Amino acid sequence: MPKISEKGLQMPASPIRKLTPFADQAKRLGRKVYHLNIGQPDIETPESMLNAIKNIDFDVWAYTPSEGTLAYREKLTEYYNKLGYGITAADILVTVGGSEAITIAMQTCVNEGDEIIIPEPFYANYNGFACMSNVVVKPILSYIENGFALPPIAEFEKLITSKTKAIIICNPNNPTGYLYSREELEALKSLCLKYDLFLFSDEAYREFCYDGREFVSPMHLDGLDENVVIMDTVSKRYSACGARLGCLITKNKTVIAAGLKFAQARLSPGMVEQIAGAAAVDTPDSYFEKVNTEYTLRRDTLVNRLNSMDGVFCPNPGGAFYVVARLPIDNADAFCQWMLETFEYENQTVMMAPATGFYSTPGSGSNEVRMAYVLNTSDLNKAMDCLQEALKVYPGRQA
Amino acid sequence: MPKISEKGLQMPASPIRKLTPFADQAKRLGRKVYHLNIGQPDIETPESMLNAIKNIDFDVWAYTPSEGTLAYREKLTEYYNKLGYGITAADILVTVGGSEAITIAMQTCVNEGDEIIIPEPFYANYNGFACMSNVVVKPILSYIENGFALPPIAEFEKLITSKTKAIIICNPNNPTGYLYSREELEALKSLCLKYDLFLFSDEAYREFCYDGREFVSPMHLDGLDENVVIMDTVSKRYSACGARLGCLITKNKTVIAAGLKFAQARLSPGMVEQIAGAAAVDTPDSYFEKVNTEYTLRRDTLVNRLNSMDGVFCPNPGGAFYVVARLPIDNADAFCQWMLETFEYENQTVMMAPATGFYSTPGSGSNEVRMAYVLNTSDLNKAMDCLQEALKVYPGRQA
Repeated sequence: MPKISEKGLQMPASPIRKLTPFADQAKRLGRKVYHLNIGQPDIETPESMLNAIKNIDFDVWAYTPSEGTLAYREKLTEYYNKLGYGITAADILVTVGGSEAITIAMQTCVNEGDEIIIPEPFYANYNGFACMSNVVVKPILSYIENGFALPPIAEFEKLITSKTKAIIICNPNNPTGYLYSREELEALKSLCLKYDLFLFSDEAYREFCYDGREFVSPMHLDGLDENVVIMDTVSKRYSACGARLGCLITKNKTVIAAGLKFAQARLSPGMVEQIAGAAAVDTPDSYFEKVNTEYTLRRDTLVNRLNSMDGVFCPNPGGAFYVVARLPIDNADAFCQWMLETFEYENQTVMMAPATGFYSTPGSGSNEVRMAYVLNTSDLNKAMDCLQEALKVYPGRQA
Repeated sequence: MPKISEKGLQMPASPIRKLTPFADQAKRLGRKVYHLNIGQPDIETPESMLNAIKNIDFDVWAYTPSEGTLAYREKLTEYYNKLGYGITAADILVTVGGSEAITIAMQTCVNEGDEIIIPEPFYANYNGFACMSNVVVKPILSYIENGFALPPIAEFEKLITSKTKAIIICNPNNPTGYLYSREELEALKSLCLKYDLFLFSDEAYREFCYDGREFVSPMHLDGLDENVVIMDTVSKRYSACGARLGCLITKNKTVIAAGLKFAQARLSPGMVEQIAGAAAVDTPDSYFEKVNTEYTLRRDTLVNRLNSMDGVFCPNPGGAFYVVARLPIDNADAFCQWMLETFEYENQTVMMAPATGFYSTPGSGSNEVRMAYVLNTSDLNKAMDCLQEALKVYPGRQA
């Protein structure tokens, strides 16, 4: 029998999905499982987007240009320039989800064996994309005590070597919900210019900033055009995760030209998605206001409930729809599995993501979990009732 | 300014698209350009598939499982088992186009620096995927004189080293249209078993076999279950190139399990596509009969016209919708560019793909072009009128 490759062996499995068999088992036992483990919102996709799908009027479901249709890229330009990015359609490469934007950015910009610095905890799939691209992730710890703020620039500088080629930030952050300030981004700008680094900015959660706080992108900073690569997606913005439509944006012409070659190999992004994505740009502000009001309420509910539990600490994040909370437990992986395998409260339980999957420094996050507030407040409260009871009886509880 | 990666520099640009600026220029001059350069059929997508899109009835455009929905995989199983593949839904990984099936197959099965043997001319994007995966392509020449039949097994054996991990066949073939016989596949089977190689079978054109000839897949051969990986797509089958929906199929459980990890990193294939793809499985046989009658007529028209031209030779292929023809020219790249840049006949011209882009042995294919018969016979005849006139006056004509 032929053997699979080393990469096939080394490729990390998704930490978010590894507890799925235990959730399935709990469901087979008739238990209600509240899914706080994955960033699949229950929010409705804008009607304009769904109507665009229903109203398609082509006879041949054809390839589009590899870089995306001009119509969609021009519509996207409208969206981004309203945010002040100052781009043209030529600065955009339409991708198959934000995922492809990340792989193209890594493969285009970072040599094999070279290093990318990422504040941790970070989006777990960066590990998979780095493995696929033979890129080395150098994590830099951020801390729950200050809400997972950007680590001091001096800590970054300690990690920089001749192999360092890029920094990735996810803003607002998955998994922590942290929203980087203008000052933090200015500090990263100086660092990238000093050491000639790319700054990859994953802005999947851009729309979700709370308490009137300002979203700042590296695209808003002067003098950084050649360094900034935006990795974006419609998944969260329009609750359209199944669309698989994203884009890579950069004013660096060499990166766009090289990235296009990777896009050409896979021929085309989806045609129906681009039609729907163009329609989505006209989504009224009222949609986002309503969604943000709902998410704010959910965040407040979740954070308040968590902090009212004995031994639990949860920062109040400024964006996205995740929190990372510290629990009085011995081991997050064991605890999350126990919640599904053993525990039930009124025949209900909660699925959470152990934070260990978002750290690459061994041992980190072992008493933290990530929760996505993608359920309504009533369900969130029931989920918190379960967690509160669970923490009282969990055999691995720590003082 | 930060530098892009070596891979970004080395990644091959699409040979099919490199003449596009010249075609655009011809169009700006008011010339009609017949596009025989790319495999984008003019055939209508089945109504059932388009209706499935128009009739979507979900409120949240959500992620699907990384391996694809069970509903779609079960429907696909129906399709493949009608062909005699004897598979279950667990043997299928739904991918974003056939392209992703190829990259996942390469990354899962072939170590970096290891080799894949591919009869050439071959689908040009294998080069791009190999570059992305650090896999070495070892081409093995097939010849226009015998219609691009499988090269003798002895020629394969000459190339086999300890680094050889897989063979790719594309059947029916892009770019040659050649349909491999059962005997040729049996010979490949013995070879793969003898040397413990994966056999990657790209079957994008499976539906398009002419003159009553039988399509044989390695999935039809006994004793090869652990070696065969099918790379498939709905693009050509249903004229749905813009759907970006394909799949990887193998009965090798280790390959499926490792391939799933790559699929998990990118989260999900498209949701609307899978709904449409499931509906497409019920496309009536009459649709394919009508399409194949049309393609047969086009192939016969094209092959007859070509062979009636002085100095031109074109084999009559058994499948797909491509031919590779030998022309009395000095240089296919220069000729195809000249056709767009300089030549016109009654204000019309033809865009073809120089065959050089489908060979990796330097110098090969320099007097060959690939043509896709994706236009109706009236347009094909007009395109051939142009080519006939062009060959009379082309300055680089060879005896």
